[in-house]
Amino acid sequence: MRLSRYFLPVARETPADAQIVSHRLMLRAGLIRQTAAGIYAWLPIGLRVLKQIEQVVREEQDRAGAVELLMPTLQSADLWRQSGRYDAYGPEMLRIRDRHDRDMLYGPTNEEMITALFRDSAKSYRDLPRILYHIQWKFRDEVRPRFGVMRGREFLMKDAYSFDLDEAGLRASYEAMFVAYLRTFARLGLTAVPVKAPTGPIGGDLSHEFHILADTGESALFYDAAIEDVSRDELLAADASTIARLTGLYAMEEEEHARIADCPVPAERLRSRRGIEVGHIFAFGTKYSAAMGLSVQTREGEQVHPQMGSYGIGVSRLVGAIVEASHDDNGIVWPEAVAPFRVGLVNMRVDDGSVTSAAEEIYGRLSDAGVATLYDDRDERGGAKFATMDLVGLPWQLIVGPKGLERGTVELKRRATGERDELSVESALARLTA
Amino acid sequence: MRLSRYFLPVARETPADAQIVSHRLMLRAGLIRQTAAGIYAWLPIGLRVLKQIEQVVREEQDRAGAVELLMPTLQSADLWRQSGRYDAYGPEMLRIRDRHDRDMLYGPTNEEMITALFRDSAKSYRDLPRILYHIQWKFRDEVRPRFGVMRGREFLMKDAYSFDLDEAGLRASYEAMFVAYLRTFARLGLTAVPVKAPTGPIGGDLSHEFHILADTGESALFYDAAIEDVSRDELLAADASTIARLTGLYAMEEEEHARIADCPVPAERLRSRRGIEVGHIFAFGTKYSAAMGLSVQTREGEQVHPQMGSYGIGVSRLVGAIVEASHDDNGIVWPEAVAPFRVGLVNMRVDDGSVTSAAEEIYGRLSDAGVATLYDDRDERGGAKFATMDLVGLPWQLIVGPKGLERGTVELKRRATGERDELSVESALARLTA
Repeated sequence: MRLSRYFLPVARETPADAQIVSHRLMLRAGLIRQTAAGIYAWLPIGLRVLKQIEQVVREEQDRAGAVELLMPTLQSADLWRQSGRYDAYGPEMLRIRDRHDRDMLYGPTNEEMITALFRDSAKSYRDLPRILYHIQWKFRDEVRPRFGVMRGREFLMKDAYSFDLDEAGLRASYEAMFVAYLRTFARLGLTAVPVKAPTGPIGGDLSHEFHILADTGESALFYDAAIEDVSRDELLAADASTIARLTGLYAMEEEEHARIADCPVPAERLRSRRGIEVGHIFAFGTKYSAAMGLSVQTREGEQVHPQMGSYGIGVSRLVGAIVEASHDDNGIVWPEAVAPFRVGLVNMRVDDGSVTSAAEEIYGRLSDAGVATLYDDRDERGGAKFATMDLVGLPWQLIVGPKGLERGTVELKRRATGERDELSVESALARLTA
Repeated sequence: MRLSRYFLPVARETPADAQIVSHRLMLRAGLIRQTAAGIYAWLPIGLRVLKQIEQVVREEQDRAGAVELLMPTLQSADLWRQSGRYDAYGPEMLRIRDRHDRDMLYGPTNEEMITALFRDSAKSYRDLPRILYHIQWKFRDEVRPRFGVMRGREFLMKDAYSFDLDEAGLRASYEAMFVAYLRTFARLGLTAVPVKAPTGPIGGDLSHEFHILADTGESALFYDAAIEDVSRDELLAADASTIARLTGLYAMEEEEHARIADCPVPAERLRSRRGIEVGHIFAFGTKYSAAMGLSVQTREGEQVHPQMGSYGIGVSRLVGAIVEASHDDNGIVWPEAVAPFRVGLVNMRVDDGSVTSAAEEIYGRLSDAGVATLYDDRDERGGAKFATMDLVGLPWQLIVGPKGLERGTVELKRRATGERDELSVESALARLTA
């Protein structure tokens, strides 16, 4: 992508109303713009990150055997009356009346709708087990939206729902999603701490939250330091034993931790850090299937209410969480897995024919090799271009200038470490297209 | 994808409330389910089609130099007060009040929001020209939603917006989008007739609608038969001369046609058919930039309001339009470009070890070759499996049964023509992976 034709409004100044670093950097680096309280437009480079994360989440859901569909954003209030949640849900539910005075709402979650969809087509044990998911915009009318996309009102969530014949099946689905979550966060380069959670308004008796460690997190966590010893490779190869190991280690939110008289973790191994909740899974059994009349016939001919669970990941919130976890004084430092472009190509002198023809050739070759490249072909000073590249945080910067070209070289900079190498064009291309 | 683990609720009966064939087939083939009046959930196989179409639309927008971003579904009423459309827009606008009693709305279109976003960051001629687009859910509170996704209330639209310094620039952007539309519809296997349109509530003085010919279309069109002579290859290679040729040929909606005293087309070349509007483009100049205070500095230091246009494609409506254009008595006939899976693999006898091991091996090899395959591994009668495959409409069916296997063959059926070939497994695989 040529920056001269892109839409990347970066800002040098720190936005006054942004309290946390991810919010500030996402505004400054041109990822998002607020369009109303707690509602954001995703500018082109922000959308690319959002889609990368969405794709990792999708691949891990698919790998776990979940099947993607897409439910609408608006729902009928009648659906929520069937479960009894229409009146129970507080003012965070955005209630809407259409032109025919029908009560509707902007979905904050989809337990009711998926239960109704499944009820209307699943008839027997042969239709189970199933895990269905979608990635769709949700709305929660937060009283005080803040922290940018971390606590916005309109947000992108992946929510999956499992249907099983019995409790053993539900446990298997819950474990499959647990594994998918461990793999998802590991692929995103994040350390996620699973915390046993109270089940709250969704109901049920088994629930875990997944928290990313970050100083600006809204939750205070207490956990066994051994959790941090689980390696990325172990998480990518996670199975039931990984879950057993992780959930066997102490991890509590402050409120729950305070209630425990004797913390089982020795003081020297007890860590206290803040966390950002990015995932939440629930096994709630027959709560919705019973309330909404979903039943299937077993092999033996009995009618039973399927055992259900639900499994959420805050996809848009993850963008903020990753920035919280990965930035420095100069800007964002994207992990490769979610970077909006892999390479930032800087043309230091667009008015110099030989520099421009070299940069254009490199841009063409990177593009042909399928390397996502943001090419700064604007007529700007080098200093401004460097500052933009650091702020935007692409993993690699490739700098093409007149002095280097005289020696037949370009400069390759690794954003994460600041490390620079002077290389021939061919070596630089070989490294980036490897 | 194994059908035994998928979610594909097909129905043999014709749904009572569905008036047109695409609505009936989309319900029967398990593409969609209605969740409220004019609001649909996209079931897994429907979502796959929707995403294929979305991707073709996206590629052609990118190819035309448009840049993707994503605006939220909900908008502040204040934005629409700036353009004066908040009060002017009728009851199709879904008006919402949030918990703080702020007036909001579910976006039916995004001229205001994109103008405000562009206004807050574009400063000079160097920021122009630009075409920005997004693919996002919209809501129009139709008084009588009908025809399934063809006239739903919540629908997926691609809307692009162009910003140019002067009228010549606007004409160039308009032409670039016109070409993108011709290519998009040609790639989707559709014959689209561009019709000069009145500009209506969006305003401006140049506008075209794109109609797909189908007997159930809501518009009656009169056009020069020569429009149908433009070949797919010509459309894929479209440029300004293609546009000049097409727009030089007569094409009018009935209402406009009736107003014309002397139709310029000789009777033997005048065609009258019904059409489904799937795209609409507008050049409206400074209507929004002037009303909302968007201006940029020219090279000469003057402040000017950019010339704008907007360009919509009904992505979810296209699913219905394609089914209208491509089906037979047995079900849907997907064009290859948008088919949810390329191959339907039918295991005729799951209880027969040799049939199942052959089918499993074929499934593995198709999957490894990246051929999207729906594998019917259910314990069902062959007749039911054939009926499902015909209904669902994948381009190819590959049937593995005991009799053929004795002769070392499988059967390959082309859905569009019904043509069947008895082939060795290797020849069948070679044909499908070519």
